[in-house]
Amino acid sequence: MKVSELGEFGLIDLLAKMVHRTRDKQVEAWQQLIIGIGDDAAVWHGDTSTQLATTDLLIQGVHFPSDITSWKDLGWRAMAANLSDIAAMGGMPRYALISLALPGDTEVEDVTAFYQGMIELAQQFDVAIVGGDTSGAPLVTISITVLGSTKGQNKHILTRSSAKTGDKIAVTGYLGAAAAGVRMLKQQLQFDPKATACFKQAFFRPYPRIAEGQLLVERGVKTAIDISDGLISDLKHICQASQVGARIEVERVPIQSEVTANFGDSALELALAGGEDYELLFTADSKTIDKIKTAISCPVTIIGEIVAGKIGEITLIDREGKLFNLPKGGWEHFTAR
Amino acid sequence: MKVSELGEFGLIDLLAKMVHRTRDKQVEAWQQLIIGIGDDAAVWHGDTSTQLATTDLLIQGVHFPSDITSWKDLGWRAMAANLSDIAAMGGMPRYALISLALPGDTEVEDVTAFYQGMIELAQQFDVAIVGGDTSGAPLVTISITVLGSTKGQNKHILTRSSAKTGDKIAVTGYLGAAAAGVRMLKQQLQFDPKATACFKQAFFRPYPRIAEGQLLVERGVKTAIDISDGLISDLKHICQASQVGARIEVERVPIQSEVTANFGDSALELALAGGEDYELLFTADSKTIDKIKTAISCPVTIIGEIVAGKIGEITLIDREGKLFNLPKGGWEHFTAR
Repeated sequence: MKVSELGEFGLIDLLAKMVHRTRDKQVEAWQQLIIGIGDDAAVWHGDTSTQLATTDLLIQGVHFPSDITSWKDLGWRAMAANLSDIAAMGGMPRYALISLALPGDTEVEDVTAFYQGMIELAQQFDVAIVGGDTSGAPLVTISITVLGSTKGQNKHILTRSSAKTGDKIAVTGYLGAAAAGVRMLKQQLQFDPKATACFKQAFFRPYPRIAEGQLLVERGVKTAIDISDGLISDLKHICQASQVGARIEVERVPIQSEVTANFGDSALELALAGGEDYELLFTADSKTIDKIKTAISCPVTIIGEIVAGKIGEITLIDREGKLFNLPKGGWEHFTAR
Repeated sequence: MKVSELGEFGLIDLLAKMVHRTRDKQVEAWQQLIIGIGDDAAVWHGDTSTQLATTDLLIQGVHFPSDITSWKDLGWRAMAANLSDIAAMGGMPRYALISLALPGDTEVEDVTAFYQGMIELAQQFDVAIVGGDTSGAPLVTISITVLGSTKGQNKHILTRSSAKTGDKIAVTGYLGAAAAGVRMLKQQLQFDPKATACFKQAFFRPYPRIAEGQLLVERGVKTAIDISDGLISDLKHICQASQVGARIEVERVPIQSEVTANFGDSALELALAGGEDYELLFTADSKTIDKIKTAISCPVTIIGEIVAGKIGEITLIDREGKLFNLPKGGWEHFTAR
């Protein structure tokens, strides 16, 4: 079988099972492990705090366009995606390792601009870049690993697998602007300056919700993921890991106003399936979410509920309570979209 | 300027300086950092032990042939290279994150064979594979990050920057067989079965010197590197980091007997410049090395001495005490070889 037939998530599942079978209870590394393959980051017990690690591999023409318009933005965005994974676990990022493989004719100033973008964001979250690897390659290839920790050993973390039937589903911020940015750039769409700036900012300069992730932990939230693949796709990850289903009331989904204003009927699709918003999607009871709304510095919107029923099934409901169908799901590698 | 003009080590140096300028003494991550960019692994103070992290990026056609003959061997070798970096710091590997980017027509059984190779080696060193990333790509691309620690907070580590004038230079095991393996495969050379098996084993199944690295720490060695780029190239890394020079007596260099028997005059070149042997190269005083020889389970050979003089200069001396010239150095990415 080809990996394109199995699909990205099928492959991850297969490899995770393969690794899981080799777990050895006698081995300390396995004894200390809290979360292995299948969440936003790996988590294990450190000596006095909980340790987290996450990694991303980005390839020219696959994860970013072959024609790199701004290396600095690329650096920022690559770092942001990893910091967002730490945010989604309720952790604090601390160290980053950067591997770069580059064609020989890459301009050195482009590489330093890339680093500048990463460093700018890293500095905002007190993250130290401490190592990596460089080599030649036909395509620009970037691997970032970010290591983090919780504040203290007994702080719980946010996982994908802890959602319970009856939990409300909430999301930080507004969705769809990053996907609007991708569509604007790919299709060379023209918008007014404010919308153009909004879409560019959302796509090129996403801001990981580190402080917000920690606030969720402090307020007792157990379940979260960051929206990288798309709201529906990422909610599906939660539902599959938690063995539950979900119902989303689509009219509640908070869409960035510039997206609604410029994309009409497609706006909802961009918000539901677009991805790369790097907002946090989490579940908790209503009371907890109400308390979070008063304490958090960004909008928090309840968009639906965790339900019993078919595991991993996301039901979309329109304003009349009828089933709503979306043309496509979030991004999945290997398979045709 | 193009990165090919600057070269791999020039680029690393540039990026390391750029990151170094952003170090912030007020930030805990930087306060706790022991070794940043420029050694085999990054090292920082954990709560009660010292933490290590290393990462490698491997791309089809650059780091391994486009025609992958054994995915299982590739997995083993990729894991071995990272474990070897932890060995070279005197650490214990504990957790691994694996990122894989694959063409859609890759066979799933090839991917599982790749994982099998990694798992086999990881299990031998009690390393748990705990996360990663998968995506599509035109070329098979592998990124491995290994996290480790020392046994206890006050255990020192092995660095590149601690060699002192007068230190003897020593190496574990025998050199040249991995490079002989590469040459055999590339040039389709024929050898007797024993030599063929030896070269294949050395290239496809290198065995990281984890236990040996820890023994070096316990016996007071301060300086080590693993031989990945090649003996001379890696010794140059030590000399540059330690601000010293080195003199190697070439006839002392321990060459794998099958290499000597089959490569004649090229054998020494393979041993000095070939790379990927993953033996440990270290420096210490004679007495320390003598004690190590009796305690360690592999051959240890003194091959030269750290000297004052031009920083980073490696002088090769032949059996008559005359200067010996080698046609080329170790592998460097970006630039023509």
